[in-house]
Amino acid sequence: MKITPTRLSDGRELIYFDDDPDVLAGRVTRELHDPRDLPETVAESEMRRDPLTGQWVTYAAHRNNRTYMPPANENPLAPTTPGSLPTEVPADDYDVVVFGNRFPSFSTSIAMPDDPADYAWTVDGQDLYPRRPAEAACEVICFTPETTKSFRDLPLSRIRTVVEAWTHRTAALSRIDGVVQVAPFENRGEEIGVTLQHPHGQIYSYPFLPPRSRQILENAREHRAATGRDLFDDMLAAEHRAGTRIILSTGGFTVLVPAAAKWPVEVMVVPNRPVADFTGLTQDEHAALARVLKPLYMAVDRFFEGVERTPYIAAWNQVPVQSRLTGDDESLRGEGRLHLQLFSLMRSPHRMKFLAGSESAFGAWISDTTPEAVAERMRAVWPDDKEWQ
Amino acid sequence: MKITPTRLSDGRELIYFDDDPDVLAGRVTRELHDPRDLPETVAESEMRRDPLTGQWVTYAAHRNNRTYMPPANENPLAPTTPGSLPTEVPADDYDVVVFGNRFPSFSTSIAMPDDPADYAWTVDGQDLYPRRPAEAACEVICFTPETTKSFRDLPLSRIRTVVEAWTHRTAALSRIDGVVQVAPFENRGEEIGVTLQHPHGQIYSYPFLPPRSRQILENAREHRAATGRDLFDDMLAAEHRAGTRIILSTGGFTVLVPAAAKWPVEVMVVPNRPVADFTGLTQDEHAALARVLKPLYMAVDRFFEGVERTPYIAAWNQVPVQSRLTGDDESLRGEGRLHLQLFSLMRSPHRMKFLAGSESAFGAWISDTTPEAVAERMRAVWPDDKEWQ
Repeated sequence: MKITPTRLSDGRELIYFDDDPDVLAGRVTRELHDPRDLPETVAESEMRRDPLTGQWVTYAAHRNNRTYMPPANENPLAPTTPGSLPTEVPADDYDVVVFGNRFPSFSTSIAMPDDPADYAWTVDGQDLYPRRPAEAACEVICFTPETTKSFRDLPLSRIRTVVEAWTHRTAALSRIDGVVQVAPFENRGEEIGVTLQHPHGQIYSYPFLPPRSRQILENAREHRAATGRDLFDDMLAAEHRAGTRIILSTGGFTVLVPAAAKWPVEVMVVPNRPVADFTGLTQDEHAALARVLKPLYMAVDRFFEGVERTPYIAAWNQVPVQSRLTGDDESLRGEGRLHLQLFSLMRSPHRMKFLAGSESAFGAWISDTTPEAVAERMRAVWPDDKEWQ
Repeated sequence: MKITPTRLSDGRELIYFDDDPDVLAGRVTRELHDPRDLPETVAESEMRRDPLTGQWVTYAAHRNNRTYMPPANENPLAPTTPGSLPTEVPADDYDVVVFGNRFPSFSTSIAMPDDPADYAWTVDGQDLYPRRPAEAACEVICFTPETTKSFRDLPLSRIRTVVEAWTHRTAALSRIDGVVQVAPFENRGEEIGVTLQHPHGQIYSYPFLPPRSRQILENAREHRAATGRDLFDDMLAAEHRAGTRIILSTGGFTVLVPAAAKWPVEVMVVPNRPVADFTGLTQDEHAALARVLKPLYMAVDRFFEGVERTPYIAAWNQVPVQSRLTGDDESLRGEGRLHLQLFSLMRSPHRMKFLAGSESAFGAWISDTTPEAVAERMRAVWPDDKEWQ
C-alpha cells in the first residue's frame, strides 16, 4: 500500500491510500493539485451538556447548507476527470481516499466568540448548562472511485486498504488534542437519509465519550469488578456455548447477532482477543478481517428477498484514547473492545422500522423479531467461499 | 366527567371517559356490548438485558401481524355505527375511550414456556443474558371519535377529559405488579410510521426503568447531592434568568425549549412545582394544563411554512412507581418531575432528520439548529388567546 498525503485548496488534508505501492508511478495523469479556489471553512459548532440526561449534544447549524443528492455529474466524491467539473478529489483515479469533511460536525477550526466573556462557555451564563467548542475532526473516506459500486463489491485487497486507512486515521485523529474516541462508520441507503450515493463512509472523532461507549465501558468495569473477567471474553464464551446466534467464527474474529439485539437486522464482528482499536490489529488480522467483511456485506444485501441494497449503518466502536479518560473516567481504562456494529432499520422488504415514542422518547426498544431468527437468516444467505475468493 | 368501564369480547378492558357526566343517559343508542367473537390474545413478549449496555430490549414478534393503514371504512378506532363493521369501540359515539392494545408490546397475559427449565429466565441458559416475560400493559387512548381531527382541534373541555383519562390510567397501571413507569405518548404522522390516522395515543407501562428516565433520575440525584436543590427547580430558575428559550409560563406550567435540545423541534412542558405524575395534579392544574396544551399543539402545526401537520412524538415522562425502585435504585426515590417532551424529526418543510451513524450507533446527537431559534419560532407562531378561547 502507498500513502500520499496532500492538501485541498482550502487547507483540508486529503490522503490517497493506494492498494499497490507503485501506483503513483504507474498512473501518468494523477493530479495532486486542487484547481478550485475554496475559502477556508470555519465551523460554528458548539456542544452543550443536557443537565437532565448528562449527554453532550452538538449544534452544527452551518451544516444545513450541505450538498444533497447532487446530479451524477456533480458527485463531489468522484475522481476529477479531464473536462469535468473539479470534485473534492483532484486525481483522475484513486483506490481509497480520505479527506476532511467540508461540512463537519466537529472541527479543529471553530469560530470563537467575539466577546471574551463568552469564553466562560456556559449557555446564557447559566452554570447548569456547560458549553464547549465542538473541537475534533470529521473525515470522509471513499472506498472506490466507482460511484455505482458498494462495500460488498470491493475485492479483498481493497477492503484491506480500507482497513489500513481506518487504522491510519485512528492513530492520526487520536493525536488531536481533546479527542476521546475515533469512530469510523458508514451510512448506506436513501432510506436512512444518505445524501451522496457514492460508496463512502465517515470517520468521526468525538471530544467526549459517546453515550453508548460509556455504557459499554461502565458495564465492562462492573463485570470485571464482580467476576474478575473481561466482559467481551465472557460474551464470546457464552455465544459459543449457546451456538444459536453465531454466524461465523474464523481467523481471529467472531460474527454474531447480539443476544439482546435492538434492530431488525443487527450483526456484530468482534476480535476473539482483546483489541482496543484498529491500531492494535496485526497485519495478519487485517487480512483475516477483510475475509470476514467481504461475505458479511454480501450476506447483508441478500437478507431481504427482492431488496438489492439493504440500507444499513455500519459503525466501528473503538476503545477511547486512554489518556483522555480522566477524573472518574480513569476507572474505565482497560475496558472495551474494538467491534463492528452493523444494523439495518429495514424490518421486512421495503418496510422500515420507525423509532417512535418508546424508542425515541423513553429509550426502550421494542423488536418485532428475535436475534436467533436474524442469525438463522444470515447463515442461510451467507455466500459460499467460492463466490468471493 | 363520567367513567364507564366495560369489557371487549376477548376480555380486554374498555373504558369510556365522557366530558359530560350525563352523557350515557343522553345517548339512547349507546351500545356497550362487543358483538365480535375475538379469541383471547396471548402475547409472546419477552425482555432481554443487553450485557454491553445494561438496557432491557423487548421482543414482541407477534406484533408483526398488526393492522397497517386500513382503508377508512375499516378504521378500528372509529365508533361502531349501525350497518358498518364492528370496530374496537362498540358504542356509536364517544368522547374519549381507552382500551387494551390488541397487539401489545407488554401484556399481563404472557404465554409461558412449556418446559419448566425455561423458567430460569436466561437466554440459552447463559447467566450473562437475563430474560423476563414482558409483563405490563399497553393501552390505546382515542382523543375524539372524529377520524380526521387532531389533538390541536380538541376543545378545552375534551383536552381536560384526556388529562383525566391519563390520570385514571396512571393510577390503574401503576397498581399492576411489577410496573415501574407509566408512559402516555402520542405518535403523529405517517412520516414517523404511524399506522392508524385516527387521533389517538398510547399508554405504555414498563416493567423496568426506561433508559431516559434512569438518566434523568440519576442526574437529579447527583445534583441534589452536590447542591441540596431540586434539578427541575434549578432548570426552571436558569430558564427564567436566561429568558431565551421560554415560550410561555402561566397557570403553574412552563413551556420551554430545553437548553440542550436534541431534536429539530423540541418543546418541554413542566409543572412549576414538584409534581411526580398525573395523579399529583390538582383539578385547577388539569384546567390550566388544558389551556397550555391547546395553543401548544396549534403552534406545533404552524411551525413549518406549508406543512399542515407537523409529524411529532409527544411523550409524558412520569416519575416511576416509588415502591418499585428497589436495591440500588431506592436512592432514586423522590427525584424527577412530570413533564411533556414534544418533539419532531422534521428539520425543514417535508424534510426529515434521519438518525444515522452518530445518533443511532454512538448515541451522539448532532443538531442543525439551535434551541434559541426553535423557541423564537414557537413564540412567533403561538396563537393569540382569542383564536382558541
